[in-house]
Amino acid sequence: MGTIAEDTRWMDATMQAELVAAGEVTPRELVDAAIERIERLDDPINAVVVRWFEHAQAVANGELPDGPFRGVPFLLKDLYAHYEGQVLTNGNVALRDAQPVSSDDTTLVSRFRAAGLVTLGRTNSPELGSVPVTEPVAYGPTRNPWDTDRTPGGSSGGAAAAVAAGMVPIAHASDGGGSIRIPASCCGLVGLKTSQGRITLGPHRTESGLSVELCVSRSVRDTARLLDAVHGPGVGDAVIAPAPARPYADEVDAEPGRLRIGLLDHHPRGGALHDDCVEGVRGAASLLESLGHDVDAGFPAPLADESFTPRFMSIWATMMLAGLDVYADAIGRPLTEEEVEPVNWAQAQFASGMSAIDYANSLAAVAEYRRATQQWWADGWDLLLTPTLAEPPVRVGELDPTPDDPVAGMRRAAEWVPFTPPFNTTGQPAINVPLHWNADGLPIGVQLVAAYGREDVLIQVASQLEAASPWAGRRPM
Amino acid sequence: MGTIAEDTRWMDATMQAELVAAGEVTPRELVDAAIERIERLDDPINAVVVRWFEHAQAVANGELPDGPFRGVPFLLKDLYAHYEGQVLTNGNVALRDAQPVSSDDTTLVSRFRAAGLVTLGRTNSPELGSVPVTEPVAYGPTRNPWDTDRTPGGSSGGAAAAVAAGMVPIAHASDGGGSIRIPASCCGLVGLKTSQGRITLGPHRTESGLSVELCVSRSVRDTARLLDAVHGPGVGDAVIAPAPARPYADEVDAEPGRLRIGLLDHHPRGGALHDDCVEGVRGAASLLESLGHDVDAGFPAPLADESFTPRFMSIWATMMLAGLDVYADAIGRPLTEEEVEPVNWAQAQFASGMSAIDYANSLAAVAEYRRATQQWWADGWDLLLTPTLAEPPVRVGELDPTPDDPVAGMRRAAEWVPFTPPFNTTGQPAINVPLHWNADGLPIGVQLVAAYGREDVLIQVASQLEAASPWAGRRPM
Repeated sequence: MGTIAEDTRWMDATMQAELVAAGEVTPRELVDAAIERIERLDDPINAVVVRWFEHAQAVANGELPDGPFRGVPFLLKDLYAHYEGQVLTNGNVALRDAQPVSSDDTTLVSRFRAAGLVTLGRTNSPELGSVPVTEPVAYGPTRNPWDTDRTPGGSSGGAAAAVAAGMVPIAHASDGGGSIRIPASCCGLVGLKTSQGRITLGPHRTESGLSVELCVSRSVRDTARLLDAVHGPGVGDAVIAPAPARPYADEVDAEPGRLRIGLLDHHPRGGALHDDCVEGVRGAASLLESLGHDVDAGFPAPLADESFTPRFMSIWATMMLAGLDVYADAIGRPLTEEEVEPVNWAQAQFASGMSAIDYANSLAAVAEYRRATQQWWADGWDLLLTPTLAEPPVRVGELDPTPDDPVAGMRRAAEWVPFTPPFNTTGQPAINVPLHWNADGLPIGVQLVAAYGREDVLIQVASQLEAASPWAGRRPM
Repeated sequence: MGTIAEDTRWMDATMQAELVAAGEVTPRELVDAAIERIERLDDPINAVVVRWFEHAQAVANGELPDGPFRGVPFLLKDLYAHYEGQVLTNGNVALRDAQPVSSDDTTLVSRFRAAGLVTLGRTNSPELGSVPVTEPVAYGPTRNPWDTDRTPGGSSGGAAAAVAAGMVPIAHASDGGGSIRIPASCCGLVGLKTSQGRITLGPHRTESGLSVELCVSRSVRDTARLLDAVHGPGVGDAVIAPAPARPYADEVDAEPGRLRIGLLDHHPRGGALHDDCVEGVRGAASLLESLGHDVDAGFPAPLADESFTPRFMSIWATMMLAGLDVYADAIGRPLTEEEVEPVNWAQAQFASGMSAIDYANSLAAVAEYRRATQQWWADGWDLLLTPTLAEPPVRVGELDPTPDDPVAGMRRAAEWVPFTPPFNTTGQPAINVPLHWNADGLPIGVQLVAAYGREDVLIQVASQLEAASPWAGRRPM
């Protein structure tokens, strides 16, 4: 036996909770172990940029709720996840300086607490969560534990790096265009983007947009069990996903039957797809076939629609503009151009020129895209299998704006991230499964997409793949 | 025995379907009876402005689906309800002239057909369904069967007048601000506005806006049984109401238990409330108490929010502008100012000046209003009881625009209709129950509002009220 910090480092959250429940370790010991790992491992990774270690120790010493993750160390993303009495800076320089303290929890944060999780601080997020890397000016870049010259992805890159490095077993994450799946792919983790309306975003945000929140984890069962602990609507939610027939934990190791799976192993809109990603997705297809599923070339036709990206971006830009208002509310004054990163300022400026009917028409186009895409599943397909990303993790700094082109990085991002945003638009659940590592030792994930509301199928199949090709033994450092 | 037309005139749809099922009457006989009544009764009422009598006779002669309303005559509202091969003119002059033919059914229209209903034509609707009376320039005013100097309300005024006059037992209706409940109140009918997402609006519209569609009927059971026949999502719907525990028909005559009901018997924002409406709602409160419920003064605080109306109207105006685009698509060119009624042109012009962020902020304000209002139910109230309208049915022409003020009628409408739009905003189900007639013999309805997704409670209580204070014997002519 080594230290508790090392002995528990690669245990998943379920196992850590079992140790607590069995009396073999105390919540305080688990929290101290996580603090020790963060202090030891986070330079140069830079995943945990806001630290509440004394608060976490006090929580661990107190009367923890008797939830399924009682005593397990946890981290919240530094984006929108209010935690009463603590700072939320949303990856922004002005908020980092102003240190606004939240007056309440979001409903999801309250549910995390009720599950017994102990939050140690906040993980790095790009400003407004607007790009698929995690390099805010406010806190500097987070680096990938598998290769510190590479990004862990974004926007939940701090969360993914912390979990991949073994600092905590599971961490809060959110996904408005791929921000759970992308960093899960880059860091070799499980990343489930839930159905729109599966988990309330209340009381401050709504479920009717592109974003969902849950976690990144190392095991499928951790994601399933956390989903069981926190899913469901809040008062007044407009979008509520149909309730599951049984607990998601019951889907782990459950037999999925013979599924009809469509394989997309090229870029649907004519862009480049890296050989490592082709190899990864074809390997996953072969594995699924060997497990008895029917895998055939096939994907929903709207994924090839060239008009998708501009529609998505017009809604995205309006979200950025609205996000700046949220920031202004937090510090009591509007932000200046100098206090906003160029990529986000440019998007907000673009959105400022859009009319109400432009926006209403974009929402209508989204609804049409959603119906047309979901029809593919209604026609009899069970799952879509795609690469999660079009290339391996890009180098830190690769998406930086250039002085004369603030959105150059967004265009580069679009080349790298063609597979994830469609399912924020359609509201469907999708999961990154870490099945492949390239010759450089970098994780290359695959994405499985289910029909709206069918997280159960994703958990069944991800669990089946985890058993057939386990990744728990792969460690970055 | 008189004619079939007279013998069946006051039978509800359920009873007419039972006659067909028992072989006592044929679908063709019921359809011919309805045609006879429409031809006899619709001058001066002017409810059925588009007539497909030969088509309906052919359908009745053919292989009708074996649904719960097999052979029952039915009417569709002339608004958004596409019926393959037939004209949809949306209450607009240019579309009336162009006579655009629909290339498909909406999903709901397909479900009406599958239920065995036989559609005889379309009922009058104001252009774009934008006002609570039914007086489009395209077809002229629909008049109230209880007093032909009065409006039947709107926007489903044609539907309500046709059902109240005994032309058909039940008719399609839709409600974006009260357009089912208002005409049901004016005409002495049952009018259920369902929960947002209870019934798909696909494939051409979405459930995420203010509107829902179902029917007006004379009996509670007809509404419950039609809801059973048509509820549920379509492929790709974004908003899906939680599924009911059992068929709605089972709620008819089911014991609701002792409910906690809040009574709102004044105008929540300080406006005038006509004595007849006060008398109607207090009478309903007494009846509910006599049935064993707890009725106390109480209502959700956001109903008093003065900022509600401008927010609602900014979204409403954008809907009008988007609606003009739908009209333009139908006839292949944009409408001119001369082809759009002044009230709608003015709203579209107003919406044209709104920015994307204005609209996004209005949607965010709606979400906040929704959460705050629904909290009242979460706090333990089962139902809210209000008058449906602030005055008895207004006179035909009362909401006409004045030459120098195209939206004068909208302001007058807002005085008359303060109670219904909030629940389009919050997505909650609400029902008009026809319990009171004033000294002039005009129907004065009350509105009951349940928590989101709880149509079951509304049907139970409306059925209980129908048994305690039956209105089936009240006839206008």
